[in-house]
Amino acid sequence: MNPILLLLSSLWIAYPGDNALHVGSALQTRRLCNNQAYPPFWPAYAAHPGVHFRKKVKLGHDVVAKIEAKGVYRIYCLKKDGVRDGYGTFPKGEYEIWVNCFNQKEPPAIRITGEGVDTDGGWTADWGDGRVPCETFEDDPTASPLRTEPRQFKSVEKDGDGLFADLGREDFGFLTLRDVRGTGRVTVVYGESPAETRETKVADMETWELVDVRPGDVRLPVSRGWRYVSVRPEKGVSVGSLGYEREYYPLDGAGAFRCSDAKLDEIWRVSRYTLATTMREIPVEGAKRDRWTWSGDAVQSFLMNYYVFGALKPVRDALWYMRGGDPVVKHQNHIMDYTFYWFVALDDYYRYTGDLAFMKQVYPRAKTLMDFVIGRLDAEGRPHERPDDWVFIDWAPEELHNRGGVTSFETMLLARSLEALAGCADLCGDGAAADYRARAAKLRAWVKPTFWNEEKGGLMHLRKDDGTLDAQFTRYPNVFGLFYGYFDGREKRRVIDGVLNSDAVMAIQTPFMRFYELEALAKEGLRGEVLKEIRSYWGAMLDLGATTFWELYNPKESGDRHYAMYGRKYAKSLCHAWGASPAYLLGRYYLGVEPVKPGFAEYSVKPDPAGLEWMEGAVPTPTGPVKVSVRGGRATATGNGGRGTLYWNGKTAAIPPHGEVTL
Amino acid sequence: MNPILLLLSSLWIAYPGDNALHVGSALQTRRLCNNQAYPPFWPAYAAHPGVHFRKKVKLGHDVVAKIEAKGVYRIYCLKKDGVRDGYGTFPKGEYEIWVNCFNQKEPPAIRITGEGVDTDGGWTADWGDGRVPCETFEDDPTASPLRTEPRQFKSVEKDGDGLFADLGREDFGFLTLRDVRGTGRVTVVYGESPAETRETKVADMETWELVDVRPGDVRLPVSRGWRYVSVRPEKGVSVGSLGYEREYYPLDGAGAFRCSDAKLDEIWRVSRYTLATTMREIPVEGAKRDRWTWSGDAVQSFLMNYYVFGALKPVRDALWYMRGGDPVVKHQNHIMDYTFYWFVALDDYYRYTGDLAFMKQVYPRAKTLMDFVIGRLDAEGRPHERPDDWVFIDWAPEELHNRGGVTSFETMLLARSLEALAGCADLCGDGAAADYRARAAKLRAWVKPTFWNEEKGGLMHLRKDDGTLDAQFTRYPNVFGLFYGYFDGREKRRVIDGVLNSDAVMAIQTPFMRFYELEALAKEGLRGEVLKEIRSYWGAMLDLGATTFWELYNPKESGDRHYAMYGRKYAKSLCHAWGASPAYLLGRYYLGVEPVKPGFAEYSVKPDPAGLEWMEGAVPTPTGPVKVSVRGGRATATGNGGRGTLYWNGKTAAIPPHGEVTL
Repeated sequence: MNPILLLLSSLWIAYPGDNALHVGSALQTRRLCNNQAYPPFWPAYAAHPGVHFRKKVKLGHDVVAKIEAKGVYRIYCLKKDGVRDGYGTFPKGEYEIWVNCFNQKEPPAIRITGEGVDTDGGWTADWGDGRVPCETFEDDPTASPLRTEPRQFKSVEKDGDGLFADLGREDFGFLTLRDVRGTGRVTVVYGESPAETRETKVADMETWELVDVRPGDVRLPVSRGWRYVSVRPEKGVSVGSLGYEREYYPLDGAGAFRCSDAKLDEIWRVSRYTLATTMREIPVEGAKRDRWTWSGDAVQSFLMNYYVFGALKPVRDALWYMRGGDPVVKHQNHIMDYTFYWFVALDDYYRYTGDLAFMKQVYPRAKTLMDFVIGRLDAEGRPHERPDDWVFIDWAPEELHNRGGVTSFETMLLARSLEALAGCADLCGDGAAADYRARAAKLRAWVKPTFWNEEKGGLMHLRKDDGTLDAQFTRYPNVFGLFYGYFDGREKRRVIDGVLNSDAVMAIQTPFMRFYELEALAKEGLRGEVLKEIRSYWGAMLDLGATTFWELYNPKESGDRHYAMYGRKYAKSLCHAWGASPAYLLGRYYLGVEPVKPGFAEYSVKPDPAGLEWMEGAVPTPTGPVKVSVRGGRATATGNGGRGTLYWNGKTAAIPPHGEVTL
Repeated sequence: MNPILLLLSSLWIAYPGDNALHVGSALQTRRLCNNQAYPPFWPAYAAHPGVHFRKKVKLGHDVVAKIEAKGVYRIYCLKKDGVRDGYGTFPKGEYEIWVNCFNQKEPPAIRITGEGVDTDGGWTADWGDGRVPCETFEDDPTASPLRTEPRQFKSVEKDGDGLFADLGREDFGFLTLRDVRGTGRVTVVYGESPAETRETKVADMETWELVDVRPGDVRLPVSRGWRYVSVRPEKGVSVGSLGYEREYYPLDGAGAFRCSDAKLDEIWRVSRYTLATTMREIPVEGAKRDRWTWSGDAVQSFLMNYYVFGALKPVRDALWYMRGGDPVVKHQNHIMDYTFYWFVALDDYYRYTGDLAFMKQVYPRAKTLMDFVIGRLDAEGRPHERPDDWVFIDWAPEELHNRGGVTSFETMLLARSLEALAGCADLCGDGAAADYRARAAKLRAWVKPTFWNEEKGGLMHLRKDDGTLDAQFTRYPNVFGLFYGYFDGREKRRVIDGVLNSDAVMAIQTPFMRFYELEALAKEGLRGEVLKEIRSYWGAMLDLGATTFWELYNPKESGDRHYAMYGRKYAKSLCHAWGASPAYLLGRYYLGVEPVKPGFAEYSVKPDPAGLEWMEGAVPTPTGPVKVSVRGGRATATGNGGRGTLYWNGKTAAIPPHGEVTL
């Protein structure tokens, strides 16, 4: 924000998270499927219609202030000698200002500009429960953060009585039907592949809408995610040409990666673009489908974002949206693991940002979410499956889902959630931390004796209700066991060699779970193997012409079969945030940049070219990008704020706060 | 509703209570004080933005249906052979229809019209928690139920450069400034007395607003409650004349009362009008001030309503609004006793209506409210005062309020609440009834041994934290002890003679608590005394020119001092719902009509003219009014549906379902 503007007007303040709930919920309803809106099936929460804003002030003289509000409001000055209304002039003295604001259409918000009474993060908000620090906004809180700009099509062809067009790459934006003649209906079919877009069988069409047109230009009111479009006017109507405006979240380009392998560079760039395309008001899972925000997907996209854009507001807003309000009545997206991931995401957010103000705002809701979780555990405090909780883990054979009992995977993830929440509790001075840690320790201590199978050399998947272990043996718990430090050196080697590197154990097909698998391996130092996997799995999508990464890639499939999923011919998303994990892995484990203290107050740079001849890049931090380059056997790191340390070839060197060091 | 229309279109359905929350909250913000909006300070709840409507259907053939929705929506037909979209045509077969509707601006609602798929009370609604029966609406759920009609002023006079006008009686409506000349500001001061309306000192003015005008007619956008208005244009502006449209809730006139005492007739008519004037979308406490809905006030107005209008939708909507949503974070209106009264009101509602569908809709929220209450009780399950709970009881000397400890009054009211909720639990088949009853019994058993003072012959007010009783001795617990059956015959007489009929014990001044006092006496058969009190207390307000009954009447005051309250010169409300209790008392204890089984399925008529030469009247019931007349020593009752019994002079007679009987 322009510092001059800061002098001229104050910040808008609102109940923390309410704008995110409002905007996030609205975003979810813009999904289109078969010419109909498609709101999500999980609970939607409203903003609080009535909010109290409060601040203690000490004014040396009467202050004339400018007051702006979204909603009807009343101002009180709670002076010892009686309550006074505070319109326009705040009287001299020491007292609390209380603004009671009400709005049913959008979240209540106020902006007061005046010496000593400016609205800022020092104000609190409440609606009847405890006071929390306000959320602040430089501009109108409900204004869309998205921008638009016109873009040319790569090609627009006549196609029967209509048109068929290609943007050249997957994008997100508004179509305009130009030079329409006649009055009637036009069927618009969006697609991510030519086959999908040319489909004419309604049962197989995914994203299409009927548009009522009149002569002239018709700009369609809702943006869609697509690469191709087929425009099919009914008899008596014609469309002369097409226009397009892309709609995007403005993201700066702090993150960077280049290296001696052009394929890896392209994988990084396409990862970045995939992430940018799925970034809306808050991140969505896929551009075409399902344009919803899924907690597990979002948690991964946050990590990628920290290494590519460092755009923190969409992360905060997504955390609020995913969390929802109170009371909690369902797991996030109805999925038990997705609730657990949310706690991990909160922990990650603090690690990458050091944003204590946000943690204090959100902590009350983290607690009530954990109350919900704990209320659903079994008598031993374990995450037993319940009929109305979906245990997802990953898209995997049906027999792995919802079978009752307790999985080792969910148990480890719950333990991690409790540890994450204990950290938040410490930050907020809540003694409940001890209980969260005790619960986590009990779960941790239970996992290995219960699930470890010495013969197979890994953790079994499921403990059934009769107390025996199911025969299923999968990668999932072993990835998390490795990742969350459940194994000693010998066990690690058995898991890596006998499970993760074994063709005998069912392979992971989604980039979602591959993210964790590859990260676990990268963390264990197997950087060369991981780079090889990135090249082969993501490289193969590029070889198939991908301009964004997919929801799922199965090397055994071919041709248009790649587009099928969920038993539908074109249901697969070809622009899926969870597909962009190389952007995270390359920044974290190859450029090797990582916060040591929250918000990069301290950080380490441990580059690992893993056989690449050279590499260079940058990672955003709250104080600016940290740059890394490795060339000719030497490593250079350039600081931009915090206290960094470069680790290279067994040596260490301090990175200047603003300057570079080479080892 | 017109039965022909029923054939043409179905009902709108919505999540139960959500429209009441939405409309009720909006209503509260229309209060004006000192030219500024005045939203209430208690928590406001939003409607659920995402609602799932569901119904199992069995269709013999494909059904073409008309679908209307408030919000974006998606329809699923959950057929065994796969989910199908249901737009326009619902396929033949047996399956569940699921409509997922989303709206952030007003509560989601749908209307489906088609054979076998009509929306009606058989549909359920949910938002993530359990399914509840839908609320149904004959018309647009958010359309205002209020009507307007033009009315003449009694007088409009020139007053300096402005105008002063009198409606002739208190009313609620829209002012129009007619024949405005010039552009500028007009100060409009509303008042319930000439003195208030002529006040020019801003600090003493209550309900006034600055209106920006241009030449022509300016209709003020918000209706206000008032009798007089002072219109004061600034220099360069003039107002030629005034127009007025009253705004009212359409109420039919089923309830009636006439007798040989003209004063009593007038008291009944003014009571009725007071009640009608405070009836908005939901009942408000007062017309001028504070135009908010207070639970304790509303609970009384419901009882009056059952005897005068029998208008049930405003009662249901007020019950929803007062209850609010979840989570519960404060007592209703921040007042402990007001939460307790809500349970009593629910019990009353069922008694007068037999509306089981509503009880089932509201019961989940009654339970979570009691969870909140129970969570705030002390270790013995008693309603100990907490610093953030207001213990109101009545407008009484400050030393009776918020002193810590446990009051006998709140304890008895809590016991009654638990008993009321146990009844609801029985209706809804919830086993929690036993726990509620056990808690109530424990409280009941504790009251007399703890609070009874043999010397004073009544219950003491407060048990302090040191276990001793405070010296205060008041009418309040003794009224409730009598009313809720805590006393044996000897104790009753001591309480009636030594407390209620004693000048030594501080008199009750508000009609609010007088309601309970007089009802307790009337219930004990002291009808003559009560009639005398009604004549003297309410009659005195009429003698002072009241056109509606007041918030408080103190016979010791005189002149304009009657208008003062809360330390403000004109703060008192002169049109206050709780002032209308004679309408209830006369119907219930003199006409003597009372339900014996819920909804008047069985009822009794026990007329008691209490010395009146003759009386006649009618009481609304769900099947139509029951009429009663007493003349020449004989009593006649006319039935209109249920099974009634007339009791007169020691004899009984069945009242024909549609016809009359005389004893």
